[in-house]
Amino acid sequence: MTQQQARRPGEIAVEPLQTSDASLQYIGRIQTPWPRREDCPRQGDLDGPECQIEVFPPWDQALAGLEPQCSLEVLYWLHHSRRDLVLQCPRGRDQPLGTFALRSPVRPNPIGSSLVRLIEIEGRVLRVRGLDCLDGTPLLDLKPARSTFMTTNSVR
Amino acid sequence: MTQQQARRPGEIAVEPLQTSDASLQYIGRIQTPWPRREDCPRQGDLDGPECQIEVFPPWDQALAGLEPQCSLEVLYWLHHSRRDLVLQCPRGRDQPLGTFALRSPVRPNPIGSSLVRLIEIEGRVLRVRGLDCLDGTPLLDLKPARSTFMTTNSVR
Repeated sequence: MTQQQARRPGEIAVEPLQTSDASLQYIGRIQTPWPRREDCPRQGDLDGPECQIEVFPPWDQALAGLEPQCSLEVLYWLHHSRRDLVLQCPRGRDQPLGTFALRSPVRPNPIGSSLVRLIEIEGRVLRVRGLDCLDGTPLLDLKPARSTFMTTNSVR
Repeated sequence: MTQQQARRPGEIAVEPLQTSDASLQYIGRIQTPWPRREDCPRQGDLDGPECQIEVFPPWDQALAGLEPQCSLEVLYWLHHSRRDLVLQCPRGRDQPLGTFALRSPVRPNPIGSSLVRLIEIEGRVLRVRGLDCLDGTPLLDLKPARSTFMTTNSVR
């Protein structure tokens, strides 16, 4: 990703850092009905289409204790996103805005977060509703949603 | 982080992957009143103590458009966390639970997420309430909270 990439009027790109401060591992893969970015809904919907989250071994063992119908926070890696824009102008906007004032997938660390409802766990595959990401998106983490957590768990 | 680390009864560790699928860059630093993990509150509180988020250049430019009193989702790197437990037994629990059923900082990709209220922006420092992480925690991302975003913005 370089400054040479196309920019819309008002967008500002910075020189991407070449350093790596920390490393991620993909622990699963997300299946959605949306193969292209332009197909993705603008925001996840808890009544939206069912998607599947496949958790790779050995991390499927870490699903123990999750119950159907719970709310989960899903973190994933927006693997097709450029990372160099500080000001950006998403489709539908005529004025650029700072990256941190938007939930655009274009960010210095392109981590997506969604709130989903867990429908069912079948082996190491979770059926959920509420996602808005591309088909094939790499999974980074699953956590009980803050609200669920605060009412049903007393520990971190 | 290896299997040789101390485990509590019932905890299960896996061999950590040596591969890196994606790289993170630290884009800021979080200041909190909590220098040790045992000092941290178990859950962030929007009425809790004020904390500061310093955003490093050039990413301070990406703050444009954020307004005081808005709700922000903060993503950060839990830099002192081990990453190898699939079943864990946090303090206060007597039975182990899967990592994905807990909001413990111990996770395969130790990314923390908190919901905060932005009090004020002073240059490239944000004063916020709602965090629960260690002093010195590296910042990964800032996004408008989903709820704020859904009511005040129509684009991603």
